[in-house]
This record gives sequence, structure tokens and C-alpha cells, in this order.
Amino acid sequence: MVGPNKLESTVIFQLHMALPLSRRAKAMPASPIRKLAPYADAAKKSGVKVYHLNIGQPDVPSPIQFWDAVKNSNLQVLEYSNSAGIAELREKAAADYRKNGIDVSTDEVIITTAGSESLSIALNVICNEGDEVIVPEPLYANYIGFAAGTGINVVPIPTRIEDNFALPPSSEFAKRITERTKTIIICNPGNPTGTIYSKQQLEELISIANEHNLYVIADEVYREFAYDGVRPVSVLQLAGTEQNAIMVDSVSKRYSLCGARIGFFVTKNKEIMDAAVRFAQARLSSPTLDMLGVIGALDTPQSYFDDLRLEYTRRRDLLVSRLRAMPGVTCPDIHGAFYATVRLPIDDSDRFCQWMLEEFRHNNSTVMMAPGTGFYSTKGCGLDEVRIAYVLNLEDLGKAMDCLEIALQTYPGRTLNSPVAAGN
Amino acid sequence: MVGPNKLESTVIFQLHMALPLSRRAKAMPASPIRKLAPYADAAKKSGVKVYHLNIGQPDVPSPIQFWDAVKNSNLQVLEYSNSAGIAELREKAAADYRKNGIDVSTDEVIITTAGSESLSIALNVICNEGDEVIVPEPLYANYIGFAAGTGINVVPIPTRIEDNFALPPSSEFAKRITERTKTIIICNPGNPTGTIYSKQQLEELISIANEHNLYVIADEVYREFAYDGVRPVSVLQLAGTEQNAIMVDSVSKRYSLCGARIGFFVTKNKEIMDAAVRFAQARLSSPTLDMLGVIGALDTPQSYFDDLRLEYTRRRDLLVSRLRAMPGVTCPDIHGAFYATVRLPIDDSDRFCQWMLEEFRHNNSTVMMAPGTGFYSTKGCGLDEVRIAYVLNLEDLGKAMDCLEIALQTYPGRTLNSPVAAGN
Repeated sequence: MVGPNKLESTVIFQLHMALPLSRRAKAMPASPIRKLAPYADAAKKSGVKVYHLNIGQPDVPSPIQFWDAVKNSNLQVLEYSNSAGIAELREKAAADYRKNGIDVSTDEVIITTAGSESLSIALNVICNEGDEVIVPEPLYANYIGFAAGTGINVVPIPTRIEDNFALPPSSEFAKRITERTKTIIICNPGNPTGTIYSKQQLEELISIANEHNLYVIADEVYREFAYDGVRPVSVLQLAGTEQNAIMVDSVSKRYSLCGARIGFFVTKNKEIMDAAVRFAQARLSSPTLDMLGVIGALDTPQSYFDDLRLEYTRRRDLLVSRLRAMPGVTCPDIHGAFYATVRLPIDDSDRFCQWMLEEFRHNNSTVMMAPGTGFYSTKGCGLDEVRIAYVLNLEDLGKAMDCLEIALQTYPGRTLNSPVAAGN
Repeated sequence: MVGPNKLESTVIFQLHMALPLSRRAKAMPASPIRKLAPYADAAKKSGVKVYHLNIGQPDVPSPIQFWDAVKNSNLQVLEYSNSAGIAELREKAAADYRKNGIDVSTDEVIITTAGSESLSIALNVICNEGDEVIVPEPLYANYIGFAAGTGINVVPIPTRIEDNFALPPSSEFAKRITERTKTIIICNPGNPTGTIYSKQQLEELISIANEHNLYVIADEVYREFAYDGVRPVSVLQLAGTEQNAIMVDSVSKRYSLCGARIGFFVTKNKEIMDAAVRFAQARLSSPTLDMLGVIGALDTPQSYFDDLRLEYTRRRDLLVSRLRAMPGVTCPDIHGAFYATVRLPIDDSDRFCQWMLEEFRHNNSTVMMAPGTGFYSTKGCGLDEVRIAYVLNLEDLGKAMDCLEIALQTYPGRTLNSPVAAGN
């Protein structure tokens, strides 16, 4: 091998300059949920306990029915499956929707590689590069990622923490609709807000979508996570959504199967479904073993979900009461999912979350949260907000709240002089 | 509920008309490997044995090391993994590449949801909508799908069955390079051709790519499938590819794990890798259980691959000798992968393949093949070609060849009057 010399280096440098990334690649943001992971890893390596409130990774055991189905699959060859999903799984999923009052047939459901792919396919099928999607904000951070990946522009509609992030009135949607608008995206129950939209709010939304010939993509992966007797309404349960609604769903949260990567793409629009199947064919198959496991998981008894709801209600109650007791903290009402977007007395949520991982320690432990900025496509928003995923057991969640309470008193960029910090 | 009336129908019809699909969705083709599946299913339902030579689904058992690792994972919660893949798997995969003479470090390898996603990320990271990719033709059908999905134009370079589909000279590439050209894509060993490119041919290709500041995406998922003592050269083993080469890889074929959906995205270009990781973050995680299984599969002993090579050499030999004995059939030399693109004395490969499934029966069995047309982006090419995947054991492959031989004598659209058919 000839060693590098000056001429070679120059050539390589020129090459490098001339090899640009795509616009999509430049626009694709780092995940706000994961970008601080190196700081968390460093803390853990130094022996610090990190409470993960940054990511919606439940600690609840996956249903034994999933594990049994995986163990009993007894495959010799792990083969491709049908691109639209194993037929038995599609049938069983459709039956499960019907049992839950969502009237869909088997050919209106295909299996995707998690909710992420379901959303990605939806955007690809209906949007061209440069098209616009209207999304209430704060929004699930990865919507920004998928929009970037498909060259689509996110048009946010602000919602207010003081209103518990309620769905804005239809007049706010109407103001933002242009000839490039293709769809509205909602997440209900909401990530990162914990808000559940009422049937009346949803009907108003569908009405404005139909009036302007827009699609509605409804991310409903948190359907089972609803508290205080509130029952979320699916977009597919509303009249007038046969042609323009696409429901994005997943087993990740419901069955604590985030790592299975199995989701659902559901629509009654046959043309959209045909196109979605062609996108699914291009990537051949979703993970076969995980699909077999999910066929089992669909037999999970109702008691699993009842226990889940009870447990998350307790966690929610603890979180809300602890947060509201902290000076300068605003915590909205939360009825669904397992997130809270809360306002903190801090200068910059990215700095604060990084500081928590790098510098703050309480009983040799700290908390990882997701900076609020990543959940806004509007620059400058979310600076004093964090998203908290209350996915830990009550004891750990309590300890995490202890950390946060003390951290807010000692963080150098705090905007409220707490009694403890006043003397510094 | 109010029943539908004429006015409502009209409104729905108008809505439907005004809700267009994206350009991507319109351009996305049905998979030529899978589009005939409904005819195969119908044949099977009526009790007919269908020999599947249409899809690269090996019948070889997946390594026991994979199944053991899955069984021994003993997880309670199936969690998300790191977006770039489980750290242990990245380390082990990089070490495996180095063992095979491909010098990469752990941070130059990320885990993807199969080779499909690896290719999709590569195209997304380097191409804008409307950009061009140059691909020798016939080409792996799903390249057309991924290009459609990302709004990219495939610029094919014809290769000839008479030359065993050898890589065209660099002058042919040069002719097709425009200011929109971003990358060359090669598949080596080749799907659907079975061709293995020589080191000299590859060096010539790299030279033209470097001269024109193009990326090279090399799909090397068939690396272990090389016969007659030929050893494929990886693009990452060639000088001058540090900045512009992306290697797409997968466990699907090597370990007979098509259903695991685990692949690799490998590049030494740090900027490309950073962007790829952001795309990976947007979809959160590859399947965790499958990754754990693949950590085990990477311990598969060399004897597994030696046996594999021996078995596929026998299948290849049988296939080639049987095909070459059929009047009017052209079968090229095949040194790698497990496909043959062969010329048949037929009028239209789509019609022929469908006829085989719908009408032809021999001993109550028939053969499913992939029509050649799907492996060309040039309209009108591949009409008299089929892709055959020789993924069946010798006995079944022999029976499939019996079927094909007789079918070619009786197919109504045959272009050669065989002795048997002459009297009809």
C-alpha cells in the first residue's frame, strides 16, 4: 500500500466536497428522545443510576402470550412473510378492531414494520415533495423526522399548555390550509401531551378536512392508555372518513412490545391500500417471528389492560401531584398516553436535560428527559418545556421526581429563585 | 344511521376524485416477484403443488445458533434497541467483516431493518427527488421500487445474456452520467443474474465513479454464494472508496434468515453515516429479538457455509444442465448468488408465468417464476426472460425442471415449434 501524500489528500478532499448529502439528509433532525443518549451512557459508565423518562419504553412485561407464541413457533427456516403481513395476523387484528368498535375488514388492515413504517408509508402514498401537513404542536418528534425523510413541510398549529393542549378550533386549521396541504396528522391519545380529543372536536376536524379534500392521518397507538373513564374515539369510528382517513397503529405500547416492530396501517380507501401494499412489497416483509408472537399477543386477556390502566393511572397521579408541588412548574391535565409535556422554570430545555446527565447527581442518580424543543417544528418553542414519559414503577418514578425537584433548585440556568438556591 | 342516498354518493365520489395519490405512489410498481402470488394461492387451494422458483427464499435451515440465542434471550420486556443497532451486534458484525478481509470499524457499521432499509436509507441520504442512479440491467426488481419510493430515476445500462451479464465497460457508464447522476448501484454477486464482477471490472467502475464524483452503492448480500472457486471482492476492499462507497448487506440469504429483517449499512464516510443514523433514529429501532438472534448467528461455524456452497453448486449444476438441454432456452454461466436469468422461447414472460400458475399442470404440480420484465426499467425488455431462484432441494428442483420442460412444449404462446407441439 502506498501511504497518503499531499496530492492524494487533496484529491480526497475535493471528492469529499463534491459528494453532497441530499436535502432530506440535511433536513433530517437528530431524535430529541435519543440525541442525549451518549451523555446518559457516560453517566451510567461512571456508576450513576439514570432514570429514563426520555423515551416511551414501558417497563411492563410483554404478554406471556407473545413469548409463548414465539417459543412454540418451532420454525426451522425463518422465512419471508407475505408483504402485507401474515394472513392470520391480519384477520385477527381486524377482528380485534371490530371487538373494540372499529368496523374494518381484513383487507383494510396491513401489517407494517411498526407504527413508524405505517406513518412513513402513509406520508409517501399521499404526499409529494414540497407538500404540507398540518399538525397540532407540540407534536410527536418523529413526525418531523418522517416529514424530513419524505421532503414534506410540517405546518404546526400551536396548542396551549393552559388549555391542556386541546385540539384547536377548525378555524385555526382553515387558516393554514393551502393548495399544497395534503393531510392533517393527529395523535390521539396524544404523544407528547397526554391529551385525548373529544368526539365533537374530532368531528369538527373531519368536517374541515372533508370540506378541503384533505386526508386525516390518525396515530392511535395509545388507544388503551386512557384514564378517568375517558374512552378515545378512533377516526375510523366517525362518519365521512371512509375515503380520507388512515389510522396508524402499533403493538409497541399496548403490549409493551416496542422491540417487536409490528404495526398496522388501516384505511377503508382501497386505492390508498393498494399503493400501501406496493410500498410494503418493496421492502418484502415485516419480521416474521415477531408477527407470530403478535398473533399470540392478540389473545392477551382484558385483565392485562385493566391492570395496565390502573398502574398508569397511579403513575400519572403521582407524577402530576409531584410536579404541581414544585415551584414554577406547570403540569397540565393528562387523560391519556403516558407522557406529560410540562413547563419548567428553566432557560433552555436542551441545556437543562444535558446538565442533568452530565453534572447533576442526587443519591448518585439522575433523570433523563426529552427537551421540549424537539417536539416543536416552530423554532424557539419548547425552550422551557420537557417531555416526561411516566413509564417507571411508582418507586422509581418517585425517586426521579426527587431528582427533578432538587435539580430545579440548583440548575444554574433556573429562572425562578428557589428558597434553597437564593443564597448562591 | 342514515342510509346512503344519491346526494351523499355524489359527495363521496367528488371527495374521492379530489384525493390524489402522490407521484411516488403512482410510480411504485407491484413486485414482479410477488404480484402473481394470488394465482399461486389459487392453484394451491385447488390442491396443486407449486414449486416456488420465484423468490429468493432458501429452504436451508437457519443456523441453530440463531434459534438458541432467541430462546436463551429470556426477556420479560421486548424493548426498543439503540437506533443504530445493539452495540454488541455492531461490534461483532464489524469483527466478522474484518475476518473476511473487509477492514471496517464498529462505528462504520449500523444495523438496519434488512437490506431493504439499508438501500432505502442510502438512496434517501444521497439523492434528491429527480436525481438519477445508474444501474446495470437486468437489475434487482426492488431497486425500481425503492427509486420510485424516493422519487429517483433509474438509468439502466444494458448487459447481455450472451456475455453472462458482465459489467459493462466504463465508457458505457460515462455515456449516461449527467449532472443529476448521484450514484451507481451494483449487486455483486448479482441478483437476478448470478454474475460475479472481477476485481479489475470493479476497479474500473470505481475509477469512473471517482472521476465523476459519484457514490457507489454495492449490494453484497450474496457474498457467501460464490461457486467454482470464485471469491467476490467487496467494494470496501478497493482503494479510493473511503468517501463514496456504501455497502448494503443483510443476514437474509447468508443465514437463511429472510424473515428476521436484519441488515447492515456500511460506509467509511462519516458524514453519510451520521445522516444514516438520523434516518435510523426516525424509525426508532430494528427488531430487538431478531438482533439478539443474529448475535448468535454470527457464531455459525464455517462448515455451515461450506455445506451451503456445496449444496448450491449442485443445484446450480442441475439447473444449468437441465435448462441447456431444453430447445430454445439460453442459460448463461452462473458463478454466484442463487438466481438465473434465462431466455425462453416464449412470447411474453408475464403471460407465461401466469399461465403456468393458472392452466399448466404436470403430475398435479406447476412452477412459479418471476417474469423477466420486472427486472428491467427499460420498457419492452425481459419479455422472453424469467428469473429462476434455485432455492429448492435437488429433487424438487428436478421436478420443477420437468414441469418447465413440458410447459415450454405446450404453452400456447411458445415461439419455437417443439417436436411434441408441432402436430397441434
